[in-house]
Amino acid sequence: MQNNKGIKSFSISRINNGEKTAVQDDLAIEEPLEMSLETASGQVHKVSITMRTPGEDAALAAGFLFTEGIVNHPSDILQIKHTQTLPGIESNTILIQLSETATFNAEKLNRNFYTTSSCGVCGKASIDAIKTVGIYHKNAEELAVQSSIILQLPQKLRELQETFEKTGGLHASALFDIEGNLLGLKEDVGRHNALDKLLGTLFLNNLMPLHHHILLLSGRASFELLQKAAMAGIKVVCAVGAPSSLAVETAMDFGITLVGFLKENRFNIYSHPERIK
Amino acid sequence: MQNNKGIKSFSISRINNGEKTAVQDDLAIEEPLEMSLETASGQVHKVSITMRTPGEDAALAAGFLFTEGIVNHPSDILQIKHTQTLPGIESNTILIQLSETATFNAEKLNRNFYTTSSCGVCGKASIDAIKTVGIYHKNAEELAVQSSIILQLPQKLRELQETFEKTGGLHASALFDIEGNLLGLKEDVGRHNALDKLLGTLFLNNLMPLHHHILLLSGRASFELLQKAAMAGIKVVCAVGAPSSLAVETAMDFGITLVGFLKENRFNIYSHPERIK
Repeated sequence: MQNNKGIKSFSISRINNGEKTAVQDDLAIEEPLEMSLETASGQVHKVSITMRTPGEDAALAAGFLFTEGIVNHPSDILQIKHTQTLPGIESNTILIQLSETATFNAEKLNRNFYTTSSCGVCGKASIDAIKTVGIYHKNAEELAVQSSIILQLPQKLRELQETFEKTGGLHASALFDIEGNLLGLKEDVGRHNALDKLLGTLFLNNLMPLHHHILLLSGRASFELLQKAAMAGIKVVCAVGAPSSLAVETAMDFGITLVGFLKENRFNIYSHPERIK
Repeated sequence: MQNNKGIKSFSISRINNGEKTAVQDDLAIEEPLEMSLETASGQVHKVSITMRTPGEDAALAAGFLFTEGIVNHPSDILQIKHTQTLPGIESNTILIQLSETATFNAEKLNRNFYTTSSCGVCGKASIDAIKTVGIYHKNAEELAVQSSIILQLPQKLRELQETFEKTGGLHASALFDIEGNLLGLKEDVGRHNALDKLLGTLFLNNLMPLHHHILLLSGRASFELLQKAAMAGIKVVCAVGAPSSLAVETAMDFGITLVGFLKENRFNIYSHPERIK
C-alpha cells in the first residue's frame, strides 16, 4: 500500500535444503523520525523519536500528538513540515507548529504521561490516569457487529497488505465500518506507528471520534494500542494475534470490545461481548 | 520458562465455527516498569519506563543500562532493588544504585542517545553515533558456524518456550554456543525486554563479551535488537522473522552475521556470510 516507498532491496545469500544462491531480497525500511513541536509563541520542544518506515510522517506525527492528548482538534495544528530536508532523501526530522487555539501543556509532552507519582506505576492506576486524558470514550451509543463480518476481516487485510507480502516485516492497522468496508490501512515496522498513521490521517480529516467502526490489528494487542484506540473513541478492536493482560484490562475499563486470535473460522472475545451478534 | 509467573487467566467467550463457548484463557502479563538510577553521591535520575512482563526485573534493568552504555562492568552496580513494594503484588518500580567505580554520564541517560544534533537523525549517522558507544564490537576473533546447527535452533526454541505456547503473546531471546547448546532463554511481551533480560543476566554474571555465541530472536530483527547485540559483542544473530533495512545495515557495520527468515530447512544471510559453513 506504500507504492514501494517503504521497501529497500538487498543482495543476500539464501540457503535452501543445503543449496546456497545469491538473490535480491526486499526489506521494510526502518529509520528514525524525530518529532519537535513549536508553540504559537515560538517555543520549540522535542517530543519524541520513533523508529518508523518513512512515508506519511505528517499523519504519524498528528496521530501521535492526538493519542497522547497533546492536540484535540485538527485546528490545533497550524502546519506539519519536514525540517533539515536533504536533496534526494526524505527528511527524518519533523516539526509540528501549533495554532493559537491549541491549549499547550508542557507536562503532557512527557511521553510516559502515565508515570506520574500519583499513579504509582501499577497497571490499574495507570489506566485510571489515562481515563482522565481520553476525550472520546464516554457517551458511546449502542453498536452491534455481526460475527460473520469480523471473520472476513483478516482475509481483506491480507489482500491489501502488499508491502507485508513483499517484506514480511511490517505491522498493519486497518479501519472498517461495521459492514466490513475498508476505510483505511497503514503499515509500518512499528505497530504503534501504523496505528498513529491511521488515526492521524482520520484526525487531520476531522473524522474523530470513531464510535461506529472496527479497528483491525495485524499482530498482537498491547496496552499501548488499546490506549490509542480508546483516545479515538473506537469501540471494537480485533487483533489477529494475542492480547496482553493489560490490553484486556484496558479494553474492559474503556468499554471496548476486544477480539483476539482472529482466524478464518474462529476468534476469542476478551471484553464486552454484548456487541457481537 | 517463567513458572507461570508471567501468565494471568481470564474468563472469555470463544467463537468457533459459529458456536459460542465460555472458556478460561491464559494471557501474557503486561505491566509498566519504571527504572530509576542512584549515583554513588546520592543523586536519583529517572531512566525510563517500559511495558514488560513482570519477573527478572533486575536482569532487565541491568541489561538495559548495559546496552545503553550507562554501565560497563557488573562492579559498576552496587545494588538493584524494587521500591514501593506493596503486599501481595510485585513492585513496578526499580532502583539501580551505582557504585563509586561507575563513571556516570547524565547525558547517556537520554534514552534516545542517537538523536544528538551531530548525528542529524538519519539512519547511517545514528549507526556511527552508536559505534562510539559500543565497547565489544572490536577485536572479534574468527568464528565459524555450521548451517546445520543454525537450522536446528528454531525447534530447540519452540520446545523450551513454554509460556509462549500457553499465551501466544511473548517474544523470546535465546543464547546458544556455536555447537547449538542453549545457554539462556528469556521471554517478555516486549522483544527488547526479552533481550535485555537475557543480556542483563549474562552481564551480571560477568560473562561479557559474547564473541563465540549465537543469538536467536523469536520474531523480527529491528535496529534496536541489533544495537543491543552489538553492545554485547555478539557476532551471529538469527531471527525467525524478517529483518528491517536498518537492522541489516547495522549488522553490516558492526561485523555481525545476520540470518533472517530462519525455518526448518532454509534461511537468508543478510550480512557477513563468511562465518557460515
